[in-house]
Amino acid sequence: MPVVVGYVPTPEGKAALRRAAEECRLRRTRLVVINSNRGGKALDAVEAARYETELQEIRDQLTEQGIDHEVRQLVRGMEPAEDLIAVAGEVSADFIVIGLRRRSPVGKLILGSNAQRILLDAPCPVLAVKADPSSP
Amino acid sequence: MPVVVGYVPTPEGKAALRRAAEECRLRRTRLVVINSNRGGKALDAVEAARYETELQEIRDQLTEQGIDHEVRQLVRGMEPAEDLIAVAGEVSADFIVIGLRRRSPVGKLILGSNAQRILLDAPCPVLAVKADPSSP
Repeated sequence: MPVVVGYVPTPEGKAALRRAAEECRLRRTRLVVINSNRGGKALDAVEAARYETELQEIRDQLTEQGIDHEVRQLVRGMEPAEDLIAVAGEVSADFIVIGLRRRSPVGKLILGSNAQRILLDAPCPVLAVKADPSSP
Repeated sequence: MPVVVGYVPTPEGKAALRRAAEECRLRRTRLVVINSNRGGKALDAVEAARYETELQEIRDQLTEQGIDHEVRQLVRGMEPAEDLIAVAGEVSADFIVIGLRRRSPVGKLILGSNAQRILLDAPCPVLAVKADPSSP
C-alpha cells in the first residue's frame, strides 16, 4: 500500500515530503506525491512553470534515492483536501503525510481547514509533520 | 527513537494502540503507552481498577508480540495533551500516535482540543488514526 503526500513548496511541505520518502524507504513501498492547485487566476503561467521545475526536481531526487514514485499535479478546481482524500482512496493508501505550520512564538495557531478536513475525512491514518526549524 | 501512543479505552484508542504496535514492529523500536487521567473526582476507585486491568492486558499483549514496551499511567492533574507532549519530549519520540473519532454520518465533527493541541505542539510528527469501523 503506497504512502500519499500532499506537497506544497513551503518548509512544512518539504518536511512532509522528506518524511514520506523515509517511510517509503522503510516500508519498500511506493510514494504518491500530490501537488494540488485550484487553477484559474490563482495559478498564473509563471507560477505553473515554477511548480513544474520543482516537481521535476522532486522526481529526480526520488529516483536518485531509489524510491518508486509517482508525481501528480492536479489542477481541477478542488480543494487540496478533496484531492488528497480522493487519491488516498483510489490507491488504497497506507497513510497520508501532510505538513503543518509550526506554532509561532507569538499568537495561537489553529489548524487550517484543509488539515482538519484531511485528518477527519481521510480513509486512512494521517501523519502530520511540522517544518524542521533548522532547515529552510 | 521510541513511538509514543496515547491510550484510552475507546475504539479509536484501541486503533491507535494497534497501529503504534505495528509501527514499532516494523522499526524494531520501543513503544511507550501513556494512559493519562486528570485524577480527582473524575477517576473513582472502580474506574481506576478497570484501567489497571486493561493496562495489564496491554502489557501482556505487547510482551506476547515481542514488542519492547513501557506503560505509564499518569495521574497528575494535567490534560492528556500536556502529558503526551511532555513524555514525547522526554523520550525523544520518533512520533506520537493518537486516535481520532470517525466523523459521524450526521453532523460535522470537529477536532477535539486535545488532538489539536497535540498536533500543533508536539515536538515530533503525529500519526492520527481513526477507529476501524469493522472492529469493536
